[in-house]
Amino acid sequence: MEKPILVFQTDFTYKEGAVCSMYGVVKSTDRTLEIFDGTHEIPHFDTWSASYRLYQSMRFWPKGTIFVSVVDPGVGTARKACIAKTKDGYYIVTPDNGALTHLKEYVGIEEVREIDEAVNRLKSTEGTSIFHGRDLFGYCAAKLASGIITYEEVGPAYSIDEIVVHEIHQPTFSEGKAEGIFEICDPNFGNLWSNIPVDEFIEKGFNYGDIINLTIRHENEVVYHEKVPFAKSFGFVKQGEPVVYTNELMKVAVAISLGNFRETYHVDFGHDWVVELEK
Amino acid sequence: MEKPILVFQTDFTYKEGAVCSMYGVVKSTDRTLEIFDGTHEIPHFDTWSASYRLYQSMRFWPKGTIFVSVVDPGVGTARKACIAKTKDGYYIVTPDNGALTHLKEYVGIEEVREIDEAVNRLKSTEGTSIFHGRDLFGYCAAKLASGIITYEEVGPAYSIDEIVVHEIHQPTFSEGKAEGIFEICDPNFGNLWSNIPVDEFIEKGFNYGDIINLTIRHENEVVYHEKVPFAKSFGFVKQGEPVVYTNELMKVAVAISLGNFRETYHVDFGHDWVVELEK
Amino acid sequence: MEKPILVFQTDFTYKEGAVCSMYGVVKSTDRTLEIFDGTHEIPHFDTWSASYRLYQSMRFWPKGTIFVSVVDPGVGTARKACIAKTKDGYYIVTPDNGALTHLKEYVGIEEVREIDEAVNRLKSTEGTSIFHGRDLFGYCAAKLASGIITYEEVGPAYSIDEIVVHEIHQPTFSEGKAEGIFEICDPNFGNLWSNIPVDEFIEKGFNYGDIINLTIRHENEVVYHEKVPFAKSFGFVKQGEPVVYTNELMKVAVAISLGNFRETYHVDFGHDWVVELEK
Repeated sequence: MEKPILVFQTDFTYKEGAVCSMYGVVKSTDRTLEIFDGTHEIPHFDTWSASYRLYQSMRFWPKGTIFVSVVDPGVGTARKACIAKTKDGYYIVTPDNGALTHLKEYVGIEEVREIDEAVNRLKSTEGTSIFHGRDLFGYCAAKLASGIITYEEVGPAYSIDEIVVHEIHQPTFSEGKAEGIFEICDPNFGNLWSNIPVDEFIEKGFNYGDIINLTIRHENEVVYHEKVPFAKSFGFVKQGEPVVYTNELMKVAVAISLGNFRETYHVDFGHDWVVELEK
Repeated sequence: MEKPILVFQTDFTYKEGAVCSMYGVVKSTDRTLEIFDGTHEIPHFDTWSASYRLYQSMRFWPKGTIFVSVVDPGVGTARKACIAKTKDGYYIVTPDNGALTHLKEYVGIEEVREIDEAVNRLKSTEGTSIFHGRDLFGYCAAKLASGIITYEEVGPAYSIDEIVVHEIHQPTFSEGKAEGIFEICDPNFGNLWSNIPVDEFIEKGFNYGDIINLTIRHENEVVYHEKVPFAKSFGFVKQGEPVVYTNELMKVAVAISLGNFRETYHVDFGHDWVVELEK
Repeated sequence: MEKPILVFQTDFTYKEGAVCSMYGVVKSTDRTLEIFDGTHEIPHFDTWSASYRLYQSMRFWPKGTIFVSVVDPGVGTARKACIAKTKDGYYIVTPDNGALTHLKEYVGIEEVREIDEAVNRLKSTEGTSIFHGRDLFGYCAAKLASGIITYEEVGPAYSIDEIVVHEIHQPTFSEGKAEGIFEICDPNFGNLWSNIPVDEFIEKGFNYGDIINLTIRHENEVVYHEKVPFAKSFGFVKQGEPVVYTNELMKVAVAISLGNFRETYHVDFGHDWVVELEK
């Protein structure tokens, strides 16, 4: 059987030698393992974004792929280090600090095990407690991928109910109206992604081509209120104009064609960024 | 026969999960495919730079390598999605939006085919129209690399004359004089690269060691005019001093030794940035 | 025998096509070679940082791994191009310009050879002298990794004493006191890493849980002086508070919990940044 691929995401950036050291440990454990960068530019200490990025990309990888997510503000403290297995057959090696939020809610966690540091931690670096990406998560993931340990040998299972999660906000709908939050952004193009599934949105009477009353509130104050077209892609509106569109995860999102909505209108994501769409 | 390597370039950055999702689709199509990053930091929507970066790096890869270039401001609109084959044996999977400009001009396109979305698009994501890097270009490139489809099965061929290209500016020469434009920069070190081939430059009487009258005009206004040495490398002038040199593609370029010409003199690239060199 | 992995570090960034061209040359030399990014974000021309990053990550890779380090302000000039072999069995392909400093001091260099450009330079690009990462270091490293040349065939050996090195500063100790410099930073999280080994530090009477008098001087002027706890990790102090901790290389370092010490206190690294710790 083919060994699973390892996909890493962290808030380390590639500016110095941390990612390189981490990958070195993997290749020293098993030279044949295949490693991919997810992203190393998760915002510092942002376990919500870590959770969302896992949810965003995981489904596109082969079943069995092992994701290593190291956004770990509590490194070296009592927070659990775990490996979760999703109901659709992927593994996530991560501190149990909220990074499993979206997968638990939208995909389902089948099993979770606490990494036993006594056997699954790199021995040569035991004097330091601040780089578990290299010494614990990366190393243990490599052992699992390689077949050196089974999933059961990661460490003891614990209750899925104990997994640390962030609060997830659900959108609300009525005929011709939908309300949700911006739950993440595209930090590159400056698009904002809501938590409103397009399927339900369309069910409530919205169609491509509609002009929509779009209202964005931050802490209950209106920061944006305009009529904006709902279109299949950016190019259906003129350069510089806003558009409501269906994003890559089939959720309602907003953008500026050839522009940056987030920077232009100083809009961001989080539970206090409410988006309302009305016909 | 070995399967070709896939080299990706985009304007996505690595800040979030887009590249990761795209590569997941490739590995789900064929686990054995080999993927490399070209660059994911093409300036947003800049199909000229996309074209130049393909031209810059392609020749150094093994024949048969498949380049996937996704700088796609028109994603989801009527612009063609294509796979071109160069006269020297490489493939480029790209929106037909100018990204083939330099390869068509300097290498030659042997054949170009429009991707048939009915058969070569990822089925599971058909509800969204804004991520063809993942759903069309990456997926179809993986099928081609894997041998699941032949080049002919990409879709119908169309005339090479129909390929969308940007205007290419040609340098002009007289004895002891050359004029061209800065056609691209090195955004890292701040060097500016002209479109003047060094071979012709030297033929017109320029030699390493010469002191050259270098004039740079922007929209016909002189923004830089100095005597600058022509040298084989940066270290032949003192730190902080400008130099005319032969760049990695054998074109005339300008730099500051251990400095940044572009930022220091507020010089940039494009058809309205004219460079004149005179003995 | 398995071919060694190639790990590259440069100051090129991934913004344009340089890394891509360099890796293309490797894969054209031997399609089966495995390439990893170390970092391509070494500060421009900073051979000290190049040296430190090699030292930071190398030990975690399989023995025999070949590191290619291209921070090369003197490209095309008389500086030597070399391949060094460490006493613990790694290879480094680099300009001999200080990049071997830490490995020579802390690991030991067993042998060093000057690359013979007459045989180990890419022929097709001989008209340009400014991209040895692609044309010399990457190409020669690929030949060595592939087994096309032996280590002896790289070129003539020269004396290890001739290797260009930066000055290394040693820490000083007395009972209950340690003094050193910040020799590098973590540019991502803003932590500062001293040259003081934790083992000696603890030997001089310091223990986790101690409150330490931490003094930082720049050019003999005190820029920071506070009582700071010595802890195993960041999370043992409150958010926003400073901490003295044991870094990933078992040296004494300073950080702000969930913050950025370097930016907050305008502290940096170098021989003129002295750190003093007293009980």
